[in-house]
Amino acid sequence: MEHLGQNGLISEHENGITLCCDEECSEKERVTTSIQYAVKVLLMGLGEDINREGIRKTPLRVAKALCEGTRGYVKSVKEIVEGALFPEGGVEKNKVGDAGGVGGLVIVRDLDFYSYCESCMLPFYFKCHVGYVPSAQRVLGLSKLSRVTNVFAKRFQEPQRLANQVCSALHEGIQPTGVAVVLLCKHIPFPDMESNSLHSNHKGVLGILVSSGSGVFENKDANLWADFFGLLNFRGIDKDKIIDKGSLDHCWCPSLSSKVSPRNEEMNPAMVTAVASILKSLGEDPTRKELQGTPARYTKWLMNFQCNSIEKALNGSLGSCTNGALKTNCVVGFDEKIHSELNLPFLSQCEHHLLPFHGVVHIGYYISKGFHPIEKRLLQSIVHFYGIKLQVQERVTKQIAETVSALIGENVIVVVEASHTCMISRGIEKFGSNTATIAALGRFSTDLAARVVFLNSIPNDT
Amino acid sequence: MEHLGQNGLISEHENGITLCCDEECSEKERVTTSIQYAVKVLLMGLGEDINREGIRKTPLRVAKALCEGTRGYVKSVKEIVEGALFPEGGVEKNKVGDAGGVGGLVIVRDLDFYSYCESCMLPFYFKCHVGYVPSAQRVLGLSKLSRVTNVFAKRFQEPQRLANQVCSALHEGIQPTGVAVVLLCKHIPFPDMESNSLHSNHKGVLGILVSSGSGVFENKDANLWADFFGLLNFRGIDKDKIIDKGSLDHCWCPSLSSKVSPRNEEMNPAMVTAVASILKSLGEDPTRKELQGTPARYTKWLMNFQCNSIEKALNGSLGSCTNGALKTNCVVGFDEKIHSELNLPFLSQCEHHLLPFHGVVHIGYYISKGFHPIEKRLLQSIVHFYGIKLQVQERVTKQIAETVSALIGENVIVVVEASHTCMISRGIEKFGSNTATIAALGRFSTDLAARVVFLNSIPNDT
Repeated sequence: MEHLGQNGLISEHENGITLCCDEECSEKERVTTSIQYAVKVLLMGLGEDINREGIRKTPLRVAKALCEGTRGYVKSVKEIVEGALFPEGGVEKNKVGDAGGVGGLVIVRDLDFYSYCESCMLPFYFKCHVGYVPSAQRVLGLSKLSRVTNVFAKRFQEPQRLANQVCSALHEGIQPTGVAVVLLCKHIPFPDMESNSLHSNHKGVLGILVSSGSGVFENKDANLWADFFGLLNFRGIDKDKIIDKGSLDHCWCPSLSSKVSPRNEEMNPAMVTAVASILKSLGEDPTRKELQGTPARYTKWLMNFQCNSIEKALNGSLGSCTNGALKTNCVVGFDEKIHSELNLPFLSQCEHHLLPFHGVVHIGYYISKGFHPIEKRLLQSIVHFYGIKLQVQERVTKQIAETVSALIGENVIVVVEASHTCMISRGIEKFGSNTATIAALGRFSTDLAARVVFLNSIPNDT
Repeated sequence: MEHLGQNGLISEHENGITLCCDEECSEKERVTTSIQYAVKVLLMGLGEDINREGIRKTPLRVAKALCEGTRGYVKSVKEIVEGALFPEGGVEKNKVGDAGGVGGLVIVRDLDFYSYCESCMLPFYFKCHVGYVPSAQRVLGLSKLSRVTNVFAKRFQEPQRLANQVCSALHEGIQPTGVAVVLLCKHIPFPDMESNSLHSNHKGVLGILVSSGSGVFENKDANLWADFFGLLNFRGIDKDKIIDKGSLDHCWCPSLSSKVSPRNEEMNPAMVTAVASILKSLGEDPTRKELQGTPARYTKWLMNFQCNSIEKALNGSLGSCTNGALKTNCVVGFDEKIHSELNLPFLSQCEHHLLPFHGVVHIGYYISKGFHPIEKRLLQSIVHFYGIKLQVQERVTKQIAETVSALIGENVIVVVEASHTCMISRGIEKFGSNTATIAALGRFSTDLAARVVFLNSIPNDT
């Protein structure tokens, strides 16, 4: 890693601090400046040129995103709930039962959010189902259930604590008969460098269910939970899959697995210090128990995407495979069949936002005279090789296509489908969105029918 | 309708105007004040008491939501795109084809938005798939495709114009080989007062597909569209269902159908004037061709939800049905079977935000001695009767339960599932969210097993 002084970083930082001493300079600017400095340290730790155009403004983008994503620390639940409690009567006096402002469950389902994993500092997505049983002849405006959830989502969190905090805050704010919260949280997978594959249990994403209840929902076996899950069953939520409180410690964030979790002394100390300073700038206490290992874990995650070492290692194996393919038996003549490998998983890091994107790659090709089909294992290595660095999806698509083209003689089509963490976190929050890119070389660039045949072969469920 | 002067509205408005002459008062406050005044006129036109607690702050909420929802008028596409174009090379010189920064389609799919229908002023949801073919060795940051779309979404729109404007703005901003936009727009249904039912083609929502293309996408038969739809086919988009430009005029907004569309003179002139003043306050030109009939159409829509007339009409039929049920043959003894009617559609208007919510009601009941099963038609009338006014979901649930309880003798359970427009529009934008409420009377309030049996009978796909 380069020395900071050589890059003019210290003076820039000092300027920042000088500026911040000015009465005009807000706390926000001070935080942003300090995070930008730390991100530059991280980029240099990855071996990146921090003046390269694609990443020149990345420190600013990261700082803005982190401030936006952790703004929950300074939000007040009281202000949100205040003025949003509306008088609403219970059932008529001559009737027995629960409804309206006294009893009668109210659930808002399928609320999409993102939060930050306190173990690894990556954003995670969660779907929230939140309900309460009104009391005291008043009901809460429905949107407030969402807004209160967001106060606790926009912090460094762990699923069970998040559920507990939302539940307690709503209970205090509404003073109802009870509050129930169910969260389906999805963590993005971590790469397993040995096998070039992703640890995951479902489409590249790790999902867990947690719940929290207060008042009539405090006991997990309370009758009201049966109503709550009755209404969630429509959404495919199975209550038996909910994780018991306290059993979550080692099964949520992949950075906590013994295989991945690093010791502080194994990691670049400047990077670890930079990450700790980011946590502090955002108002967190980096010495709090759950955060103590986070700087090392985030650094280790980030180092998966460094420019050099992995590239070198894979480059070697790629070279030998290529030579092998060229030397062995040849397919005679031009093959009219499209060879394809669909749904090859990949993980990459968006260089604009220093946030992961992941998905699948579909590759189709014709084999030119003198070339061979390519083993799936080699295609997966190529995909992994170009994915696992600071990237943009357009470039990784092109690079995979060019590399495969050299192996089979020109005619290749590559489709990449990916979910970008930078599209669900930050101010943008487009939760279902998904990006597709195409590269078409040789015959595929001119033969529409060939492209259509290949595109139609990609299954719907990806 | 009450006279404004009697309610102190004029002086309040005058105060507002006086305040606005003050240098301290921003344009924004002026707009908010003016819209609040107009909304009070509308609420009084509906026969509502504007000082009732549930709607006292509705004018302010509506004003804020409209300002938020039409902020696209003052946003600049240039500012969004500027600084987000990144250099990215095309394919290597020795290769033939399209990829990276020169050629090679890039699509962001499944972006959720809402916009405002210019014909009836109601928010509508749309899903956007937007793509382009890069040129000049540069690509656009992916989130900007979403942000530019939002500039045009946050206006009074019509689907085809919206698609065209997004397409043109991106073409100008990126200067690519071509831009393609496909929008799936969903309009909420309008009630048909004669049949107590909702006009719709799918689950209570009217959906249409529109597209727009520039450059290599300008011709609808261009080869590139085949690639675009090839990638959208995964998302269930059928290009044959896309509506041709110019054929949309009378098939999108239900307010434009001859059955519903009112003439100006048929409507309350104070309300029509108030709606026109809202359009003007938001920076629109109420005399623009497409907006000329909008105030009358919005007024007519709103009048569906007035306090009095419909209530009276339906009350009569409800009374006679009830008596009929009591007079005819009785079921002897206590019936152990749960009678149920599932998926009864309803439409309502959220009194907090003056925005529709709609969905389905599920009713289950035991028949007590001396009572009869209730015809589905009557249950649907009861649901419609309590839905079609200014409401909150908790109250409509309770009211339906109490009314059915009187008809069958106490033991009834009601589940209401609804999508709230106020949860997808405004600042909150929780697109997939959905609210469920329960009322349980008599035996259902104490017998957990009976509740579970009923809840499990509700099908998953609602």
